[in-house]
This record gives sequence, C-alpha cells and structure tokens, in this order.
Amino acid sequence: MTNISIAPSILSADFAKLGEEVAEVERGGADWIHVDVMDGHFVPNLTFGALVMESIAPHTKLPLDVHLMVENPELYVPAFAKAGAHMITVHAEACVHLHRVLHLIKEHGVKAGVAINPATPVSAIREVLEDVDLVLIMTVNPGFGGQAFIPGTLRKITELREWKQEHGIDFHIEVDGGVTSATAPLVVEAGADVLVAGSAVFGKVDRRAAMAEIRDSVTLPR
Amino acid sequence: MTNISIAPSILSADFAKLGEEVAEVERGGADWIHVDVMDGHFVPNLTFGALVMESIAPHTKLPLDVHLMVENPELYVPAFAKAGAHMITVHAEACVHLHRVLHLIKEHGVKAGVAINPATPVSAIREVLEDVDLVLIMTVNPGFGGQAFIPGTLRKITELREWKQEHGIDFHIEVDGGVTSATAPLVVEAGADVLVAGSAVFGKVDRRAAMAEIRDSVTLPR
Amino acid sequence: MTNISIAPSILSADFAKLGEEVAEVERGGADWIHVDVMDGHFVPNLTFGALVMESIAPHTKLPLDVHLMVENPELYVPAFAKAGAHMITVHAEACVHLHRVLHLIKEHGVKAGVAINPATPVSAIREVLEDVDLVLIMTVNPGFGGQAFIPGTLRKITELREWKQEHGIDFHIEVDGGVTSATAPLVVEAGADVLVAGSAVFGKVDRRAAMAEIRDSVTLPR
Amino acid sequence: MTNISIAPSILSADFAKLGEEVAEVERGGADWIHVDVMDGHFVPNLTFGALVMESIAPHTKLPLDVHLMVENPELYVPAFAKAGAHMITVHAEACVHLHRVLHLIKEHGVKAGVAINPATPVSAIREVLEDVDLVLIMTVNPGFGGQAFIPGTLRKITELREWKQEHGIDFHIEVDGGVTSATAPLVVEAGADVLVAGSAVFGKVDRRAAMAEIRDSVTLPR
Amino acid sequence: MTNISIAPSILSADFAKLGEEVAEVERGGADWIHVDVMDGHFVPNLTFGALVMESIAPHTKLPLDVHLMVENPELYVPAFAKAGAHMITVHAEACVHLHRVLHLIKEHGVKAGVAINPATPVSAIREVLEDVDLVLIMTVNPGFGGQAFIPGTLRKITELREWKQEHGIDFHIEVDGGVTSATAPLVVEAGADVLVAGSAVFGKVDRRAAMAEIRDSVTLPR
Amino acid sequence: MTNISIAPSILSADFAKLGEEVAEVERGGADWIHVDVMDGHFVPNLTFGALVMESIAPHTKLPLDVHLMVENPELYVPAFAKAGAHMITVHAEACVHLHRVLHLIKEHGVKAGVAINPATPVSAIREVLEDVDLVLIMTVNPGFGGQAFIPGTLRKITELREWKQEHGIDFHIEVDGGVTSATAPLVVEAGADVLVAGSAVFGKVDRRAAMAEIRDSVTLPR
Repeated sequence: MTNISIAPSILSADFAKLGEEVAEVERGGADWIHVDVMDGHFVPNLTFGALVMESIAPHTKLPLDVHLMVENPELYVPAFAKAGAHMITVHAEACVHLHRVLHLIKEHGVKAGVAINPATPVSAIREVLEDVDLVLIMTVNPGFGGQAFIPGTLRKITELREWKQEHGIDFHIEVDGGVTSATAPLVVEAGADVLVAGSAVFGKVDRRAAMAEIRDSVTLPR
Repeated sequence: MTNISIAPSILSADFAKLGEEVAEVERGGADWIHVDVMDGHFVPNLTFGALVMESIAPHTKLPLDVHLMVENPELYVPAFAKAGAHMITVHAEACVHLHRVLHLIKEHGVKAGVAINPATPVSAIREVLEDVDLVLIMTVNPGFGGQAFIPGTLRKITELREWKQEHGIDFHIEVDGGVTSATAPLVVEAGADVLVAGSAVFGKVDRRAAMAEIRDSVTLPR
Repeated sequence: MTNISIAPSILSADFAKLGEEVAEVERGGADWIHVDVMDGHFVPNLTFGALVMESIAPHTKLPLDVHLMVENPELYVPAFAKAGAHMITVHAEACVHLHRVLHLIKEHGVKAGVAINPATPVSAIREVLEDVDLVLIMTVNPGFGGQAFIPGTLRKITELREWKQEHGIDFHIEVDGGVTSATAPLVVEAGADVLVAGSAVFGKVDRRAAMAEIRDSVTLPR
Repeated sequence: MTNISIAPSILSADFAKLGEEVAEVERGGADWIHVDVMDGHFVPNLTFGALVMESIAPHTKLPLDVHLMVENPELYVPAFAKAGAHMITVHAEACVHLHRVLHLIKEHGVKAGVAINPATPVSAIREVLEDVDLVLIMTVNPGFGGQAFIPGTLRKITELREWKQEHGIDFHIEVDGGVTSATAPLVVEAGADVLVAGSAVFGKVDRRAAMAEIRDSVTLPR
Repeated sequence: MTNISIAPSILSADFAKLGEEVAEVERGGADWIHVDVMDGHFVPNLTFGALVMESIAPHTKLPLDVHLMVENPELYVPAFAKAGAHMITVHAEACVHLHRVLHLIKEHGVKAGVAINPATPVSAIREVLEDVDLVLIMTVNPGFGGQAFIPGTLRKITELREWKQEHGIDFHIEVDGGVTSATAPLVVEAGADVLVAGSAVFGKVDRRAAMAEIRDSVTLPR
Repeated sequence: MTNISIAPSILSADFAKLGEEVAEVERGGADWIHVDVMDGHFVPNLTFGALVMESIAPHTKLPLDVHLMVENPELYVPAFAKAGAHMITVHAEACVHLHRVLHLIKEHGVKAGVAINPATPVSAIREVLEDVDLVLIMTVNPGFGGQAFIPGTLRKITELREWKQEHGIDFHIEVDGGVTSATAPLVVEAGADVLVAGSAVFGKVDRRAAMAEIRDSVTLPR
C-alpha cells in the first residue's frame, strides 16, 4: 500500500494567496494538486476556471489534476490543457458523447479521467474503462467542500478494483469527498489509490501533519 | 469631473496572490474593486465565484463591485451578498424577470446594477432605470480581458446621461471594456463616472501610475 | 368609466372547492374568471394546467381568461382552447416567434393576448399590437399572489392607451398584480379596463363586497 | 398479501370539488392519496403544484404521496413538504444528483421515493436503493391518465423484490399506470405493495366498489 | 429601382437534383442563391447544413446568401464560411452576444447580416446597424415555405430605409416570406432591395418567367 | 451469413445530385438507404431533415432507414413517416421517455429502432429490446463521416446477439461508423446484420465494387 497519492483540493485553500498555498502543500508532501472546477450549472456552485489554474501552475511542480464539474466539458478542455493540466476528469452524467470527450482530452496530450456521482452505478461507465487513466468515485455529492463521506460508495470502488483485476487493465481509482484519516483506510482497502482531501488538509493549520495523518492511516499497519 | 471612480478588474490580476494584488491597487488609488464573475454559459468563459471574492474581502476596504456574467443570476445573489458585495450588477439579457432580480439584490442589503451588451439598446432597460443604483454599459463583448473599445457604445452612455437629466433620477454609469487613457476621456465626456480597467491596470508593472494616467486623462484640462 | 371588467384570479381561491368558488364570484358580480397557469420554469411556481380549468368550466358562464406563464406556450394552446378558454394570453418574454403564437391562438377560435413583465418596455410588443385582443401589463413580477403593486408600471398603461388612440386600434388593457380599491383608480385612469384581482377578492370572506369595493373605486365620482 | 395499499390518483378526480373527492375515497377505503405533479417539461402535460395539494390536505387524514414528474424536482421539495407531503418521489431520469435530492427530501422530514420510466432499467437506481423508502415503477409512460399497462415492466418489479430479499433492505414497491383488477394481481405477485389507481377509481361512479374490486383481486384466493 | 436582387431560396427546390436546380435559376436570371438553414430548435423545422451548401457551391457563380435560423449560430460560422458563403445572416432573437457574432462572421471574410422575426421591432437591432451589410426583415414567421406575406412588416422596412438616409449608412434590406409579383412592389417601395423568393420561383415550371414576373413588378412603370 | 444488408449513408453522397446518387447505389446492390439526420444539438453537426429525404424517396425502391441524431426526436417522427421512412431509429441518450417514442414511431406505421453511443452500455436499453425492430450500435461517435472504427464496441454487438438467442426475440443489429471490408467481418461475426457504410461506398468512384468488396468480406469463406 505504498503507492497512495494524496491530492489536496484547492477548493478549501485561501484564494487570496493561492500560489503560496499550493507551494506549501507541495513542500508538505502532497502528490497531486486537485483542481475543482464548477460552473454553477452541473453543480449548484461556481468555483473557478482555467485562468485561476494558469496562475498557480508556476508555483508547483506537482501534477495538476483537473476535475470538471461542468456542463459541456469539451468546451473547457483546450484551455485547461494549455494551462498545464496533467489529468482532466469529466463527469459521465455531463457527457452525451463521453467516449468522444475522453479522446479529445487525450488528443490534447492530457491524461483522461471519468467521474461518477454517488447515485451513478459503475455499469454506466463500463464501456469506457479501457479508455481512461483514472476513475473518480464521488464519495459525496459534488458542489461543496466539507461534506460527510457516503459509505455506500465503497462497493463501487471494490467493483472497479475487481474489474481491473478481471480484465487486466489499469487506471487510477480516485475518491473525492469526506476523506479523512478515518475514511481513508476504508477507500484504500476497497481499491482507491488517489485520495482527494480538501478541508482535511487546507482546513488544518499544519498541512504537512494533516497529510501525514491521512497517509499514515493507510500505510501504517493497523 | 472630480467624481470619477476607477475600478480595477481582478480578471487581469495574478490569481496566485490575489490578496496582495487587491491591496496594491487599493494603495495605488483604486476606488472600487471590480469582480468579473463568468459561468461559461452566459459568456464563453468561466472565471470564478463567491468563494474567490470571499477570500479577498479581508484584504481591502474598497467597495466590491460584482458583475455577474451568468445565467440565472438570482441564484448567486445570496452568496455574493454574504461574501461582502457592495454592488451586484446583472445582465438584462440574462433576466426574464429583471425587476424581481434587482429587488432581490436590494433585499439582501446590496446596491443593484443592470448591465447591457454592446448590441442591446438602452430602451431595453428603460423600465428599470428608477430601480437601479448603476447601469453598466459594456464597451466590449463580455467574456475576455484585453479587447478593444467599441466606439458605437458612446451614444448609449450619452443617452443614459440625458435620461438622468431629463427624469431627475440618479445612478452611476459604469463602462467596462477597453478603457485606457485614450478612451477614458470619451466615455467620461459622454457621461460615465465609473471606469472598469483590467489589463490597463493589472497588466502594467506600476499600477499606481497606470491608474493615475487614466485618472489624469479625464480630470486634467486638455 | 362603466366598461371596467373585474377578473378574479382563481390562484387565490380554495382549490378544494373550485367549482363553488367560481360560482360564488360569478354570482357576486365578476365579469371574467382569470386562470393563472404557471409551469415552474418561466416563473418559479407551478400552479395548474388545462385539466383544472376543464373541471371548472361547467360551473360558470363567465369568459375564461387564461394567462400562460409558461415556456413554449404554443404547446398548451390546443388543450386550453378545448377546455373552453375565451382568451389566451402569452408572455412576450416566453415567445421567440410571438406573432406565430398569437395567430395560432386565433386559429383555435380563441381571442389572443400578450403579457409583459414589469421590466419589459411597451416597445417590445409594438409590432403585434394590431394582432392582439388584449395586452396584459404585469403590475407585479409574475409567480405568486399577494404582492404589492409596482407604481412604475402606470406609465406603460398610459403609453398603450395613447397608442390605441393614435393608431385607432382597439384591444383590452388588463392589469394583474396588487389590484385593490386603492390602486384600481390609478390603473383605470391610466387606461386599463380589465382588472385581475386575486387575494383582494378570494382572500376576503365577502367576495361580492370585495368586488363591489374595487368597482366602486373606479366608477363612483371621487 | 394483506399489506397492499391502494393510492387513488387525484389526476382523475373532479378538480371542481377536490376536497370532496378526496374525502370520498378516504371513506371508501383508500390507503394513500396519490398526487401527480407534472410541469409540462419532464412530461408533456402540466397538472398542478403544491398550492392545490395544500388545499386538499385539510380534507383527509391519509398520507399524501407526491409523485414529482418535473425537471429540477429539488426546487419543489420545500413547498410540498410544507404543504403536508408524507412521501415525495422523484424521477431518476430528472436528477443528475439523485442521491442529493433524496437526502434533501429526508432533511425536510418527508419520506423519499425514486421513480423510473418504463424504459429505465432497475440497474440505474441500484446505488440509491438503501436510501429510499419507496421505488415507483411506472407501468405506463408518465404524462396522462387512462393508459394501458405495459407487461414488460413486471420483471422490474420482480427484480426489485429479489433485491430486497437478497440485501435484506426494505422499501415500498409502488406501481403507477393501468392498474385494474385485471393487472393488480400480476404486479402484486411480482412484488408491488402500493397500487396507484386513477381512472380505475375516480372514473367509476362507486369509488368504494372500485377500490374493493382491486383489493379483492389481490387478496382473495383465486 | 434598377438595383433589385432576386434570391431564390433552395428551400423550395428539388433536393434530388440541387446542383441542376441552382444552375437553372442562375441561367434564368437569379442574382443571389438564398440558403435557408434551420435546426429544429430555433424554428420548428430542420432543413440542412453546410454539407449541403458545400455540394452546390461548384454549380453556381452566384453569391451564396446564408440565412441561419438556428440557435448558437456562432458554432456554424466557420463551416459556412469554408463552404463558400458570401453573406451569413443571423437572427437577433438567437444571439445574446449579437455584436460578437456579427464580427465573428466578418473575421471569416464573409459579409454579415442580421434578421428579425415579424414580432421583433427594429429598435432591437439599432445598435448593430453600423456593423451589418444586410438586414433581413422576415415577412412571414420563419420555419416553412409557402406562407402568406404579413403586411404589418412593411413599416419596419420603411423605418430601416429612413434610418439609412438619416444616418448616411448603407446596408441591404432583404425580405423573406410571401414575396410574389403582388407583394414585391410593396416591399421595394418601402425600401427593400433583395427579395427572397421560394415557392414563387422553384414552385413554378418556368423559373425564368417566374423571376422575370417578380422583377418586372418592381422595375416596370405601373 | 447470407442475410447481411448494406446500407449506404447519404451523408457521404454528393448532395448536388442526391437522386442520382441514391439510384446508383440501388443499382449497385445496396439493400437499404441510410439517412443520417443531425440537428447540431444532439451532435455537433447539422445535416438535413425530412424535406431532403422526401425529395429522394421517388428515386429509389429501397427501404429508407432514418437515423435521428437529434434532441426531442418525437417531434420529427410524423414528418419522416410521411416522407416515406421504413425504419426510424432514435438515440437512447436523447429520450427521457424512450418507450413512448418507440411506440409513437410504430403508431405511424414505421419500424422502430434504438441507437446507442460508443460509451453507452447495452444495459441502458435492455428494457426496450422487446419493443424494437433494430438496435443500432454506433461504432464511432456520431456527428461526422470518415471516422475510424472503435474496436471496443464489438463486445456490445456480441452481448446483443447473445440476448437475442437467450430470450428468443429478434431484431436487426446495425452498425454505423468505420465499416470497411476490414472491419465488416468483425462486426458480422459478432452478430451485426445491417452495415451502414458512408465514405466506404460514396467515397469511391465505383460504388458497386465498393459494396461488393464489403459484402464479399463477410460472405466469402476466409
């Protein structure tokens, strides 16, 4: 269980000094930077777009992991690719032509992920599992930080891990929502390897300690 | 011509250090801070929402002048009011129930403005001119910074100024788009009293000098 | 000033005994029955559709005056025509092809009206004034009963009355929103001849007296 | 087979005397009152909203079972909760964030149900089966009363019943559409326990007899 | 009155042999070819897109006059420009950012027009009259061929002609809908100089004679 | 493997002489004519509507196989039925009420098909497999001709073929996208019996030979 990546979500950072915030979590041991883009239409909240990410790119060497909680995500792919995205993840619920969007991302030289809401079954994305670099299992309903983990989502992580084994294909399994040192062991045991953490990292004074606590919860023997 | 306000738009600021940027233009003589909110639906760009503005509010004492370039702006009014908005301006083109939205803003204790695109005539908003604290004349098409001023919009500013005089009512006339020391005198002469400036301020190394140049262009004798 | 019609809106009636309510206001002196149809999309409230109106039609001989506060009103015209509508009024703000919709109504043998919201100027409908039997000036923002009259709408009524005189054409001018014995004289003096009254009639125990009070306010010498 | 509930749908009642209609079916043996809300967008028919239900609430002690055939059902939850709903059921096809909407209903102190159209497989809702109090299997396409039962929907009822047994969880299985004494035994045998009946009850002169006939068809030995 | 152009609309041609049809009207004296693009959303009919126009371009030397009756017309501009459009006209009712769309057309090296529906007043487009090469006055409601001319639209043509004279600016005034040898003199006298004719040309066996009849009606002394 | 039908798609034909093109592929051995209708909303391309198909109907005796890549396909069913459609296929992703739309097609005396995009699993349509005459498996993302076959779609064809056998029901399995003599054997072996071919037929000078090559690839022993 050594390959767990921790991806602090800047949704919970201080937007007045975002460059500094990002640099601090990088120094503190973060593996990826998670970038929560919301348009006020797919979800009832509007956060920020490519302009903001472009500003922080020079402040970190970590992979920028973009999570598009927007309608018509294909419209945003070029701007985020240009702004330095390492991974762009789109919601299955937002894409009538999901296969096309995933390959559009790849044509921009960016890794492609697919996300599903808590109510969406894994079966909804089974036809694209060979096309993605990452599956993001929402463990809260997207839209806001600070929500409580939904335990019922664990079986979807397990289902995906079994699919990977059964079909001999590989992709990251990322979880987003309510990840703490209490829930991290559950999702990692189920099969997740990338953990998004918002308030559990940026909400703490000592971000290094906060990340260490999450990492320890899944790597130290219990 | 002494009551001209300059409102730097943070759309052109460095989002990695927004608090500092805002503080700098305040020190440099800015009168208002202009906050350009775009949702990727009303305009083909997604900038940021209330979360970002909430972060910068503690860094300035200047009035926060929110320009909602979004569909269904009524949904965002409570969050921006709570985040410290002094003025919330909505687009006439985005509101089927424009009168209701303007009064919703006022019910939240915030001043209310209405904006119109370059192609929209002043006649489209004449029924709400008694209900607003500000009219924002877009002098470029909204969506992006750095565009060139559209001269045909000057006659709309004049028309509004004449309306104010004729009906004895008062509201600010704000212009947004392509404002520089070359165009500022034109819009002020036509009747504008609040000048939004994006790249013309934040795009310059010396923001104080940049704002002074604009201000001088409209206040010094020519 | 003898040709004033009073049109109680069933929006404020008791839906448990709608047939009885309608019969009571007919006996009490109502001239028309106003039917407020809302779809939860054009306005943020959902009231009822043709099915409800069809049920009350046998309980009154008064003209049924349908006010469609819905998107795509053309889809509802056949059902309301069949359910016994005397007049169908659509919102200018809801119709990209307003001229077509008005003539569709007429092709169904029903009189056609156009409504405008408080923020919409009369100029927006000037090209259809020869095509309509009625113009409905909203004197509150549509969506709910019990709101206060917006005085600024009076000048639109005046503008319409002057248009009728100047062009020698005829159509009813109806007002909807906040009509009471205090506001009725104002709108009638401005030019209105059909007064919608919701809570001012159905909200009172003695509906006959309530209607008489409104009628007296506009017909008796002051 | 004693716990079968019959839920007459007021869609087929006389809207001129809805209070009386509701009281009559209560006296005649109804278990729930089914409230069919349509917005003309999710389905091609507009029926009525919370205002109508609020009027009938004082006329019955039976649970009010609200079936929202609307887009954006979350917008209507507060009004129906306040108007006295016992159960609010939303369509899976109408909810991008189905899990959130179901929990929003519960936060209003109301039981939560999920409905699926004839073409929607049970797999689409499997991730929320632990979150609901009721699953509504549409046995006709929603939008109108008086349609014929679609036999292919029976296997979905069976599938749900088996899921309940297999996972040891409990929720009502309700069917809506074409329920008569001929089809009721089929759906009950498959696993349904709440039967919505519209024209089969309100379309008959003797509603008590009509309900008795349906109940007998599923409780008496055949 | 010698500069009248006749623009047969291929909407009424035989789509089985469109190249031949276009060549025939060119030989018969047509001045422009009018290309009616409908998307089934802005208007309730779906005709054809750039692919069809691209096929006919090699069959005629006449200017291709594209009339976009579509939502989001900006999305189609590149394809029609590439397919050989001489003029692209968009509907004011379809453009939130009308000024931007008109200039986008020009940036593609194509002349830009704006169209208005019968119910839309000229005041709605007054702010772009300096930006366009053509104004298209719909003299029927767009969507179908073979409709009758709406006389009330004549005053809008007059209003535009007067605007041109008063402001010393120039643009074509095109009319579309119900143009025949009976109505052509009226629209030309009012100020139109480009006449779209669909069934009045392609619906006739002798297209040359049909066009000659229309032309004669406006050029010969009466 | 003798019952394979080849359906050339007119999307790749010359629209200047569509009647001739259709007649030529009929003479050359085509079995069906495939009609690709796109509205620029469901897919990012606008092709043509019923008017175009109506023009070609007299030029061929082959079945007209309509593929509606449009939103709200129910609106187009009457026009295509009247224009001579033999089969109308709608996208599962475009239909909230898929069962209703399929039966609407049948009520117009036309055979009914359902199509699914590459990312859509077969499980999404399992509840309507008894209601359809054809399932169309998209083997490219719909919207444009000339794309490369997506191999991952083969397992969906197999899945459908197995379903047919297991449930003893019958429907055509059609594939659309990237069909050539190289890919045809794969899809036929998996279970497809109707092959749409666009550029692989109309893009060739000798269409007869092109179709023969595809047919031979699936019928001759390898």
